[in-house]
Amino acid sequence: MKGIVITVGNEILCGDIINKDLAIIASITKEYGIDIQKEITVKDDIDEIKNALKEAILYDIVFVSGGLGPTQDDVTREAVSSFLGKDLLFKEELLQTVKNKLKDWQIPDNPLHKKYGYIPEGCKPVENPTGLAPGILCKEEGKFILLLPGPPRELEPTLQNGLSLIGLQKISRGIVKIYRTFGTREVDLQKIVEEIEHSHNIEVGYYPSIYGVKLKIRYPDNEIKEKIEPLILQKIGPDLYSLNNEELPAVLGRILKSKNLTISVAESCTGGLVGDLITSVSGSSAYFMGGIIAYSNEVKVRLLDCNREDLEKFGAVSSEIAIQMAEGVRKNIKTDIGISTTGIAGPTGGTPQKPVGLVYMGYSDGKRQKVIKKIFKGKREEIKKQAALWVIDLARRMLT
Amino acid sequence: MKGIVITVGNEILCGDIINKDLAIIASITKEYGIDIQKEITVKDDIDEIKNALKEAILYDIVFVSGGLGPTQDDVTREAVSSFLGKDLLFKEELLQTVKNKLKDWQIPDNPLHKKYGYIPEGCKPVENPTGLAPGILCKEEGKFILLLPGPPRELEPTLQNGLSLIGLQKISRGIVKIYRTFGTREVDLQKIVEEIEHSHNIEVGYYPSIYGVKLKIRYPDNEIKEKIEPLILQKIGPDLYSLNNEELPAVLGRILKSKNLTISVAESCTGGLVGDLITSVSGSSAYFMGGIIAYSNEVKVRLLDCNREDLEKFGAVSSEIAIQMAEGVRKNIKTDIGISTTGIAGPTGGTPQKPVGLVYMGYSDGKRQKVIKKIFKGKREEIKKQAALWVIDLARRMLT
Repeated sequence: MKGIVITVGNEILCGDIINKDLAIIASITKEYGIDIQKEITVKDDIDEIKNALKEAILYDIVFVSGGLGPTQDDVTREAVSSFLGKDLLFKEELLQTVKNKLKDWQIPDNPLHKKYGYIPEGCKPVENPTGLAPGILCKEEGKFILLLPGPPRELEPTLQNGLSLIGLQKISRGIVKIYRTFGTREVDLQKIVEEIEHSHNIEVGYYPSIYGVKLKIRYPDNEIKEKIEPLILQKIGPDLYSLNNEELPAVLGRILKSKNLTISVAESCTGGLVGDLITSVSGSSAYFMGGIIAYSNEVKVRLLDCNREDLEKFGAVSSEIAIQMAEGVRKNIKTDIGISTTGIAGPTGGTPQKPVGLVYMGYSDGKRQKVIKKIFKGKREEIKKQAALWVIDLARRMLT
Repeated sequence: MKGIVITVGNEILCGDIINKDLAIIASITKEYGIDIQKEITVKDDIDEIKNALKEAILYDIVFVSGGLGPTQDDVTREAVSSFLGKDLLFKEELLQTVKNKLKDWQIPDNPLHKKYGYIPEGCKPVENPTGLAPGILCKEEGKFILLLPGPPRELEPTLQNGLSLIGLQKISRGIVKIYRTFGTREVDLQKIVEEIEHSHNIEVGYYPSIYGVKLKIRYPDNEIKEKIEPLILQKIGPDLYSLNNEELPAVLGRILKSKNLTISVAESCTGGLVGDLITSVSGSSAYFMGGIIAYSNEVKVRLLDCNREDLEKFGAVSSEIAIQMAEGVRKNIKTDIGISTTGIAGPTGGTPQKPVGLVYMGYSDGKRQKVIKKIFKGKREEIKKQAALWVIDLARRMLT
């Protein structure tokens, strides 16, 4: 089934908002066998929307997102009914659904809300469980036009409801697995996977980001998956941290839980980000006891037992202090493992010997100690993020 | 000048990547007086790109992003030269520029890179300072076609270079000010600003997010700005935290610096996020000394001097403990001010009395103490983020 998306919104064309709707629509409809072949973004303008519809109606299904709000500049309903040559009818029961939501969600009513009660003749409303504006499904000479609210959190469930209303069902396109890796560059990963890819009927996608490279493989069937997956695991080695698209903090959490171990963090340059990432996992209180953000040297000495002479001799950004921080937090928070970061997040504060981006990451479990030294590139936030992820990955590697 | 954007990329139409290029192109070109009126996303397919160009050439300027990479599926160069009816010529000097970059950036060379040396006859290369693929500028019957690399960090500087090459200059469209508010809903802000908006020739935009509502006002000239700005400040009151589009942590930092005060954080449910946000500001080490992430009650007692009996009596998620945490961290990190968070980030762990989203945020400066209680909605990450922003805003309010 061939699909097209029309996105409606001045705020998208003037650059105030990034269009996230296309990615959501494409990802979801793909599972139903719909191939989105084109997308058009137009202004909140009846003629522009109608022009786009003229082209779009050549496809089997048209998704129109945005312009269903209650204000005057929202004209998608009007444009579609004009395009179809149908009247825009007011339905009391549609407005009533909206009024019930207003009551439930304790939002004050407003005369503008009446607009939600209008629908082109012959079209069906589509329930929007997370917002006020209902979706609308129209059928025109065997083609479908599905109008969806613009905000992503409303669009997604309304789209699912619309696809059900059409009667579409998810199709099986083999087995999709998403592997997560950390530490291998995309190009090196490609080399590793290439041989396997060429000799088998599998589709491979690479998605690099600050979190490492995501490897998406579509196997035609389970037999081929069972044959190939072990080869991939073996070839990538310990850089592969998840077979099931888990985030790094979730993987570390799973390992800690299974070994019945606790962890704490000592953060200098990351300023709390390591703790934030570890606690992004629901249930992390089972293994994460807490941490000490030691931004000043004074706090490193008093609360992390760092040696004052070493701080002067080696500087706060050094492998010696990274280890002392990891060991200090482990002892003072009383956990099995302590991890630490100390570095220069920039953009100022660098020297030729210790440039911006230099970070030491430490690990201590009482028996073993380990430090990694890295010079990260990027803006302040990117350096902090990389340091936080690398130290979490360090703990993962030490425990597997 | 009327503009249109063509985005090229299978990865965008299949939903793997969100199209950020349109927002970047629209924001930048707007300053040059270009109004982006439409956007079309097509697959990496010569015919599809040519079809889009046929429509796009009706506009004054066409921006094409993506499909300039070195692999076989990148066909934007081919499509544009075919559309223009021009040959694709190989230029040795173009390839040499790329080879110099490979050397500087220590990236291994590859036969595929040869593709970067091709350009349609009569078109000009546009320097891409952050990537390998040069942009390309073509002129066709008084219309411009500017080809840009897809990755946002390459697209932005290449676009700027392309606009210079065309000879366009930034135009003045009055004075734009971006005000930041926290705590007022969009609808209430609208009511406040509406009177002023109706009686003057100003353009107003509202951009709500988790960081509060951004208010963008375009004044026709400085005289009107000087007249109206004080009215707006007065009407919005203390919810307005920046006149210059500063982030909340930067504003708090500025206040602390100007008063020569230091701050520390005691974090339970936010897990380190408050510290992370405060240290997102370069130079924050001047006023941020550190903090204690007290995820377990044991850490709250030992490192924040929370009263064990109170913990049992009121629970960790209570106004009493929030205050004790703020006061404890202030004393133990030895800062002028301590702030704290304790709550239930969910999705599990809620009770009818203490539901998911309940957070207490505390402030202590030795003389004054304050607690805010909130029930935030959203996912775990959203609840953490709201709590962290609210406690930073609490400190800002207490100090202004």
